Amino acid sequence: MNYGVILASGKGTRIKDNIDLPKQFRLINDKPVIIYTILNFLKTKRFDIIYIAVSKEYLDYTNKLILEYFGEIPNIKVICGGKERIDSITNCINSIIKDNGCREEDVIVIHDAVRPFVTEKILNDSIDSAREHNAVVCAMPVADTLLCSTNGEQVESIPNRSFYYKGQAPDSFKLKVFLDLLNNLTEDQKNKLTGTSQVCTMNNYPIYMIEGDEINFKITTKSDFALAEAVVKGINEDEVIKNNTR
Amino acid sequence: MNYGVILASGKGTRIKDNIDLPKQFRLINDKPVIIYTILNFLKTKRFDIIYIAVSKEYLDYTNKLILEYFGEIPNIKVICGGKERIDSITNCINSIIKDNGCREEDVIVIHDAVRPFVTEKILNDSIDSAREHNAVVCAMPVADTLLCSTNGEQVESIPNRSFYYKGQAPDSFKLKVFLDLLNNLTEDQKNKLTGTSQVCTMNNYPIYMIEGDEINFKITTKSDFALAEAVVKGINEDEVIKNNTR
Repeated sequence: MNYGVILASGKGTRIKDNIDLPKQFRLINDKPVIIYTILNFLKTKRFDIIYIAVSKEYLDYTNKLILEYFGEIPNIKVICGGKERIDSITNCINSIIKDNGCREEDVIVIHDAVRPFVTEKILNDSIDSAREHNAVVCAMPVADTLLCSTNGEQVESIPNRSFYYKGQAPDSFKLKVFLDLLNNLTEDQKNKLTGTSQVCTMNNYPIYMIEGDEINFKITTKSDFALAEAVVKGINEDEVIKNNTR
Repeated sequence: MNYGVILASGKGTRIKDNIDLPKQFRLINDKPVIIYTILNFLKTKRFDIIYIAVSKEYLDYTNKLILEYFGEIPNIKVICGGKERIDSITNCINSIIKDNGCREEDVIVIHDAVRPFVTEKILNDSIDSAREHNAVVCAMPVADTLLCSTNGEQVESIPNRSFYYKGQAPDSFKLKVFLDLLNNLTEDQKNKLTGTSQVCTMNNYPIYMIEGDEINFKITTKSDFALAEAVVKGINEDEVIKNNTR
């Protein structure tokens, strides 16, 4: 089985405006961010079930949204996320195992709701590479000059940027491998986790990379929303052109 | 003296469309990219002369643009850039020295034309910090998970991203210091330069950082232009609001 996991329990307090709605539920061109994300997961037709973790107060809200946009879809399950990213992942995994058990070949693809433009290629590569390598992150080459400074004032070195990549999402794993790695961690290690890939590095477990895409950007700021609007309008225009030139 | 150096001799062939005009001359909301850049340099009122390096075939074009937008401005000089970034910088420095000589306290602030939204704070900090530290780069903390891989397939380590910064522009120097460092390099070293800050690191000369800004992004792709349009519209709206609430 292939499981999609979409993390959507963020509070999104980093945008300085007066709208009291987490970023994943805000609109891009009249449609909530998370709907684009789900749409892209559905498009691939490779996920048996998609689990979506939201904070408790948005459980009903999210279920209603999904009903509104997709109708009665049996393979989307909205569950309650946790305090930290890793808690939401753990909750999703627990639900997966409770609902379906855990087989050697099962794969989970863990994505952020606020990266709505994840491509079909990224999702396909994630599943295929997780099946082959067990642990995979989606990453992009670093395009800027990279500077290293431990005191934040003086540059100590300029590392060779061709060896550095910036992690996007999704992170993808064989479910059983990820579960074993997670269970190996001490409570102290779990508390120090800031990303999924650290579950591997803390265990000295090898992680592989698949190539990300600039369009798979994370919506964090007001200008990201402006860019997202432009992207959606661009996609729509392309579709109009395509429809008219068939 | 404080010298602004704006590098605008790029051919901008990375955008896949049919417009045969380098990015720095394309329009954002009816005004060329480079005009925004120059405007922001002029706004600070701290630059005695601004040198702009363009490729030979755009010398007249740029001079006409400047005349159109700013009228007869004696402190903007358009000169011929070189093949590589470092050649354009060298050409600007040679013009500066030919025109004005070189004094111990002179500062140059080297910027990219295709980062049109450089802020007043960044330019002021650049001048002030170059005066104090001799060599300064504008940089932003790395926000994404950073992955290190030498073979581009398997992740070897996840460096502590709080020690890493991504370089923006401008790079700023005491003119005389920069000239001495540049003259110290062998021809082989000069050929290997990909950024200005390497002129320092190749000499083991300390570089300091000033804080960049997300809005100081580089226009490289079509979606960057979409974002730039959104930024300009946002700025215009803010100004309309400001003008109406005076």
